[in-house]
Amino acid sequence: MIDRQTIEAAHDRIRPYIVRTPVLRSSQLNALSGAALFFKCENLQKIGAFKARGAMNAMLSLPPEALVRGVATHSSGNHAQALARAAHIMKVPAHIVMPSNAPAIKREGVLRYGAKLYPCAPTLAAREETLAGVVHSTGATEIHPFNNEAVIAGQATAAKELLEEIPDLDQLISPVGGGGLLSGSILAASFFSAGIPVFAAEPAGADDAFRSLRSGKIETSQAQSIADGLLTSLGDKTFAIIKDAVAGIITVEDAEIVQAMRLIWENLKVIAEPSAAVPLAAVLKQPALFRNKTTGIILSGGNIDLQKAYSLMQPASA
Amino acid sequence: MIDRQTIEAAHDRIRPYIVRTPVLRSSQLNALSGAALFFKCENLQKIGAFKARGAMNAMLSLPPEALVRGVATHSSGNHAQALARAAHIMKVPAHIVMPSNAPAIKREGVLRYGAKLYPCAPTLAAREETLAGVVHSTGATEIHPFNNEAVIAGQATAAKELLEEIPDLDQLISPVGGGGLLSGSILAASFFSAGIPVFAAEPAGADDAFRSLRSGKIETSQAQSIADGLLTSLGDKTFAIIKDAVAGIITVEDAEIVQAMRLIWENLKVIAEPSAAVPLAAVLKQPALFRNKTTGIILSGGNIDLQKAYSLMQPASA
Repeated sequence: MIDRQTIEAAHDRIRPYIVRTPVLRSSQLNALSGAALFFKCENLQKIGAFKARGAMNAMLSLPPEALVRGVATHSSGNHAQALARAAHIMKVPAHIVMPSNAPAIKREGVLRYGAKLYPCAPTLAAREETLAGVVHSTGATEIHPFNNEAVIAGQATAAKELLEEIPDLDQLISPVGGGGLLSGSILAASFFSAGIPVFAAEPAGADDAFRSLRSGKIETSQAQSIADGLLTSLGDKTFAIIKDAVAGIITVEDAEIVQAMRLIWENLKVIAEPSAAVPLAAVLKQPALFRNKTTGIILSGGNIDLQKAYSLMQPASA
Repeated sequence: MIDRQTIEAAHDRIRPYIVRTPVLRSSQLNALSGAALFFKCENLQKIGAFKARGAMNAMLSLPPEALVRGVATHSSGNHAQALARAAHIMKVPAHIVMPSNAPAIKREGVLRYGAKLYPCAPTLAAREETLAGVVHSTGATEIHPFNNEAVIAGQATAAKELLEEIPDLDQLISPVGGGGLLSGSILAASFFSAGIPVFAAEPAGADDAFRSLRSGKIETSQAQSIADGLLTSLGDKTFAIIKDAVAGIITVEDAEIVQAMRLIWENLKVIAEPSAAVPLAAVLKQPALFRNKTTGIILSGGNIDLQKAYSLMQPASA
């Protein structure tokens, strides 16, 4: 059970290790959307994404006897780097299982923090099997990237900070992948606002959360989108929080995501990865839901290879 | 005479109209430089550059009878947009003389704020002559982009905020073009710190300030650099402040500027224009001056066409 005190304690615990990220505005983006948008810049967070919050809170929540044995996860994304950093700070081992086809930049991001890397075949079965072996042989604690209460409570602190800074927000919108950030944002809104609605934005090519909401059970998707941070399905812990509480899930196409990403780069002057541009794409796609509303957007991360970003944005500018 | 009170008054005056920009850090850039770097992100300022500060202060410092007649300047850069915005806020006319070869994005940036645009031939003589005509016929007050005490006092507020936020800085470094930001930073350091040194960074292809310091009088240069915000020479007001007070001017080549720009994009996750990357390039070029020093860097602006940035950074990544 994650209550108000859980999130406050998480925030107190991680505060020395995270950035209180700035909130940015753009009169151009407000004019374009008809809304008053407040961007919580988690792309300017440690390791370039909100994942630094949840991983740090999970790490600091371990009992001492577990902490010394270290942590483990399988991830090729921002969580791997966040967990490696948290372990580095606490001077304990981090064991990261990563598919052998993960980009070099992701491997380096983890190795930089001294984590131990376990390459495996690029299938979910291989990842889980390798991780189980690592956990068995090392005694490390598995820290799931989102289906973990300490992780969810950590991610909730991003929306909590945004609500502290802009207390009169009418609503929030967060991207949804595994649901850690979304469920955390929903909890933060319920405890630290007058109960404002929280929307979610999801790539149409990985619309498992949208369909899970409709069917009432956790669905999977073909998981094809440039928003590579949002390809996973929900977990039982995140789905339990999201299913009755999310105000709505808006799906957007990849071309809309690229367009929103370009708008963020050009107007906010910050680097946003595709997953982080999904909420703005949703705001621009469903303007009636946002017009004249003071809306907080969690800008989730900025980890994208510049060369890749340009190849994505190239056609739109030609 | 700009004293401590002048800058404090300027800050109070402009505070409602500017962003208190965030200060960012990067453990990667610290490791690379051996220094503890604090980046004052004026690229996240209104209109994407510190120029919003000086233009707003100049505008708010006009006596009412001058204010109603509006303002004028010749500029193809960030000052034009900053002045147009300030006039828009005060609901008075802005007359902007701009060379006919200025990029469309700059013209649009000014027209967006409802300024009146006067195209002229792309020579300094044509610009000054056109501006004189405009001032004569409209009664507008010319606001020079840097050789103006109200502008200098406004630019000083960037370093003032940085010193308030990070009071134990050992030194500062600012880019130098016309010298508005540099002279403002020097004044801020003298009034709001224990007198820490202020360095300047300048493109080697536009090293007029470096040579002016050596000769003791204002020099010009060939003014060839990708750092298009730093091509002008000093004015008498800025040179008077800089000449005996700057701790040193470090010149850097265009290739070093592009490399620093890429490092900022990749590690700070913000968009910096070439001029804004010049100080980091200087820090990396002269590491002995910065090693183990807590150094504040004014990241001056983020106004660059993404396509142009791409073409600049392309070779480095190939």
